Amino acid sequence: MKERILAEAERLFWKYGVRSVTMEDIAHQLGISKKTIYQHFNDKEQILYQVIQDKTGRDQSEMDCMVTETSNPVEEILGVLNMIRKNTDQVSPNLLIDIKRYYPQAFALFRQYKEGQIMRSILENIQKGISQGIYRSDINPTILARLRVEQIELAFNHDLFPSDQYSMHDVQAELMHHFVRGMLTEKGFTIYNQYVNQYNHEVK
Amino acid sequence: MKERILAEAERLFWKYGVRSVTMEDIAHQLGISKKTIYQHFNDKEQILYQVIQDKTGRDQSEMDCMVTETSNPVEEILGVLNMIRKNTDQVSPNLLIDIKRYYPQAFALFRQYKEGQIMRSILENIQKGISQGIYRSDINPTILARLRVEQIELAFNHDLFPSDQYSMHDVQAELMHHFVRGMLTEKGFTIYNQYVNQYNHEVK
Repeated sequence: MKERILAEAERLFWKYGVRSVTMEDIAHQLGISKKTIYQHFNDKEQILYQVIQDKTGRDQSEMDCMVTETSNPVEEILGVLNMIRKNTDQVSPNLLIDIKRYYPQAFALFRQYKEGQIMRSILENIQKGISQGIYRSDINPTILARLRVEQIELAFNHDLFPSDQYSMHDVQAELMHHFVRGMLTEKGFTIYNQYVNQYNHEVK
Repeated sequence: MKERILAEAERLFWKYGVRSVTMEDIAHQLGISKKTIYQHFNDKEQILYQVIQDKTGRDQSEMDCMVTETSNPVEEILGVLNMIRKNTDQVSPNLLIDIKRYYPQAFALFRQYKEGQIMRSILENIQKGISQGIYRSDINPTILARLRVEQIELAFNHDLFPSDQYSMHDVQAELMHHFVRGMLTEKGFTIYNQYVNQYNHEVK
């Protein structure tokens, strides 16, 4: 039951944000009573915390797989973009705003994931790219890794990219491609162009 | 007298931030009494407001000159980097933090300058670059202009780039060069490399 509650809560939070989803809504969707939910969780914040913990864990595993399965840092970073697309296609722009404003513990967990695992993954990607001659050797890995981490949150910022003017995926894709291109060597560009052409071909 | 007060206040604010500089300090440095300052300004916030208004006006003129004097968008954007270096070499990391936290009207003025003139200058630079075949035609100018505006503030962020680990100029330069490279076409790279080689040569 606990797993079903978490899965349904995640689906509703992602679709509508956290504030507008009530314990009643979650119970109703599952065809159970609120009492059943309270047997497993104290409040909505506790559910949210668990949802974020599970979700970041799964994202991290998926990212680790990508690193093992891809053959170079450019393919890896474009793979992450696909992952982000899958994750943000259905996400409400309220989700991160709600968490940031009203659920400090859950936000701290998200922040910790961002500063820890995401930061580390990006830094490793950059260092690998430099050592393979795909990224320029005169870039500063820590400054650019920090830039990339901040870009992820930037794309969620409603004031900067209002959702009636921008799709979140377009913003993420634009920032990600620009980020990669800004690091590429000539050799890197050859590899990058292959993936981009191949991808455009698959989409058409 | 008003001009002398503004010039001295600007120098002290830039060097130490706003909070730690008193009316007494400004008067003392000029060898005048506090009373003389109060004949021209009601309080420190009014001085700060005027300082920012003058400074952004001068920066804008300098930027406009650069656009007329340079022969292409890459030279222009690297010229802006030099301008930023001159401006941030002596700047206290407290300056923007103080203004953001304690002087809302002055911060609103800075914000207005950023959202208005800086945003417009960057957008024009990008559009010119695309039309000259120096920047890629498949980039989204408004998304990238927004990214660049946010990067300027990012480099001032003490939490992200602590001043005991990073020089503000290095961060600005890293972000700016990465920003330009992420937009360049092959033709653009040829022009960019010329300027970078020339600059490195001059520095040595």
